[in-house]
Amino acid sequence: MSLLVVGSVAYDAIETPFGKTDKILGGAGTFISLAASYSGVNPSVVSVVGGDFEKEHLEMLESHKIDTKGIEIKSDEKTFFWSGKYHNDMNSRDTLITELNSLGTFEPVVPEGAKNAEFVMLGNLSPVVQRKVIEQMTSKPKLIIMDTMNFWMDTMLDELKTTLAMVDVVSINDEEARQLSGEYSLKRAAKKIQAMGPKYIIIKKGEHGALLFFKEKIFYAPALPLEEVYDPTGAGDTFAGGFAGYLAKNKEITFDNMKNAVIFGSSLASFCVEKFGTERLQSLTREEIYERVLKFADLVSFSFSTQK
Amino acid sequence: MSLLVVGSVAYDAIETPFGKTDKILGGAGTFISLAASYSGVNPSVVSVVGGDFEKEHLEMLESHKIDTKGIEIKSDEKTFFWSGKYHNDMNSRDTLITELNSLGTFEPVVPEGAKNAEFVMLGNLSPVVQRKVIEQMTSKPKLIIMDTMNFWMDTMLDELKTTLAMVDVVSINDEEARQLSGEYSLKRAAKKIQAMGPKYIIIKKGEHGALLFFKEKIFYAPALPLEEVYDPTGAGDTFAGGFAGYLAKNKEITFDNMKNAVIFGSSLASFCVEKFGTERLQSLTREEIYERVLKFADLVSFSFSTQK
Repeated sequence: MSLLVVGSVAYDAIETPFGKTDKILGGAGTFISLAASYSGVNPSVVSVVGGDFEKEHLEMLESHKIDTKGIEIKSDEKTFFWSGKYHNDMNSRDTLITELNSLGTFEPVVPEGAKNAEFVMLGNLSPVVQRKVIEQMTSKPKLIIMDTMNFWMDTMLDELKTTLAMVDVVSINDEEARQLSGEYSLKRAAKKIQAMGPKYIIIKKGEHGALLFFKEKIFYAPALPLEEVYDPTGAGDTFAGGFAGYLAKNKEITFDNMKNAVIFGSSLASFCVEKFGTERLQSLTREEIYERVLKFADLVSFSFSTQK
Repeated sequence: MSLLVVGSVAYDAIETPFGKTDKILGGAGTFISLAASYSGVNPSVVSVVGGDFEKEHLEMLESHKIDTKGIEIKSDEKTFFWSGKYHNDMNSRDTLITELNSLGTFEPVVPEGAKNAEFVMLGNLSPVVQRKVIEQMTSKPKLIIMDTMNFWMDTMLDELKTTLAMVDVVSINDEEARQLSGEYSLKRAAKKIQAMGPKYIIIKKGEHGALLFFKEKIFYAPALPLEEVYDPTGAGDTFAGGFAGYLAKNKEITFDNMKNAVIFGSSLASFCVEKFGTERLQSLTREEIYERVLKFADLVSFSFSTQK
């Protein structure tokens, strides 16, 4: 078992300028494990759903060689439901409905076979739940990656900091990095967050790409300029899943290899936003992903000669 | 004569979270020509100042081999004055004072020796003034680059479009590209603006870098994450000046060479913001600039193998 993922498996109803959906499959755990599956690892997911969760959705995950044994089914409760509406610029959204349902009392249970996972990806959840997963590991993981968001900074900062001190990589967006560190400069923000524990800091900037910080090193991965962004839901989770999956497959924990993992994650995220929900992520091919990785390489390549 | 620059030469009073200045040298024409001078060309500037313009400032420009013959001095008027205050995030600012003074009735006169310039950089000014410069050229320039802003879209869109149709490269920021095109996607916005005339579109994204579009090709130049941004004033003009200067020196009008010009401009802009006004731009060395260009290359480099 190389990659353990914890995160919500949910139903979403999404409205964007391009249309709206009924309840569709969503959740950080879903996007992360689907994305990670394309690296060739078989992630194991720890999550919880209600009795309304459809069998076909479990089967779809399993068809991607995702181990769903860790998804608890609470038959007399409902699956976590989120509904949101994106504004015209797609950069901001309003949450219309949040029904925690079965997620409200989620007590993660890591399956026996996953307790020795070498790589752990903690999707955005309460830092207390994230910590409970770490504490169940029977051997020290090679790398623990954590995603989080401003909600936890606002409501349980101390818990967040305790969990942060236990992980190797944290992934947050630029505004959250500023909030957490109190620094406007992302370079300074990354330094301050490094001092809280994680050696590697990923700062996600949405349509502007992502930054990876390690010691004094910085890597800037652009986002691919797209003609159409259909639905940004899950893009950050998809990025994190691609990142974690790439490393779990490849097992090389170096800054250079993390750069590749960032590009792999960025490539997957660029597919994610092309359709609603997980639709595009359900039927990708490795060829498509690699083709897009080459586009990222092309996008930033230049050969400046300082001899001129 | 290879590079003709037109743009304001002004006095600015600036307040940022790091401090405030008295009247200091500013203006698009100043930043552009100083930046361009580092490529090794001797730009000729067309502008206007008042009787209050200090001799030492003209001499400073001349010490950078900038030809100031085209700077008209209206002795009984004052120099264009702008005062602004940046907010804490440095991404937005309030204009406190704008005194057009001598710039209000500016009639650009291109000096005889500059009428055959191969490269023309039109700094942000009324599109009517920009056009008057183009119309004075006695031979068709190899490349005309135009900077503009939302103010001209709001107040004289038709004039702007007329001038836009006469230039080869336009440089605007992301919000302005969206406003001008009516498209949110920058890829689509660039296509629409290309259809208005310019073959090359540069979209500046401030701390997120810049995009260069040509036909179906896209280049993404990141901005260097900086610990301190002291004063963003003039960064866009410095970028444009570095870009124009690089091309005017090198004379190779290809997408690949434009990418280098974008990196050269980005490198200069990253210095510009480190001190107030033109201070940092007055005393750079080529070595410092090239060192920073290498940092840009390093920032985006990765070597993803699709064989794995």
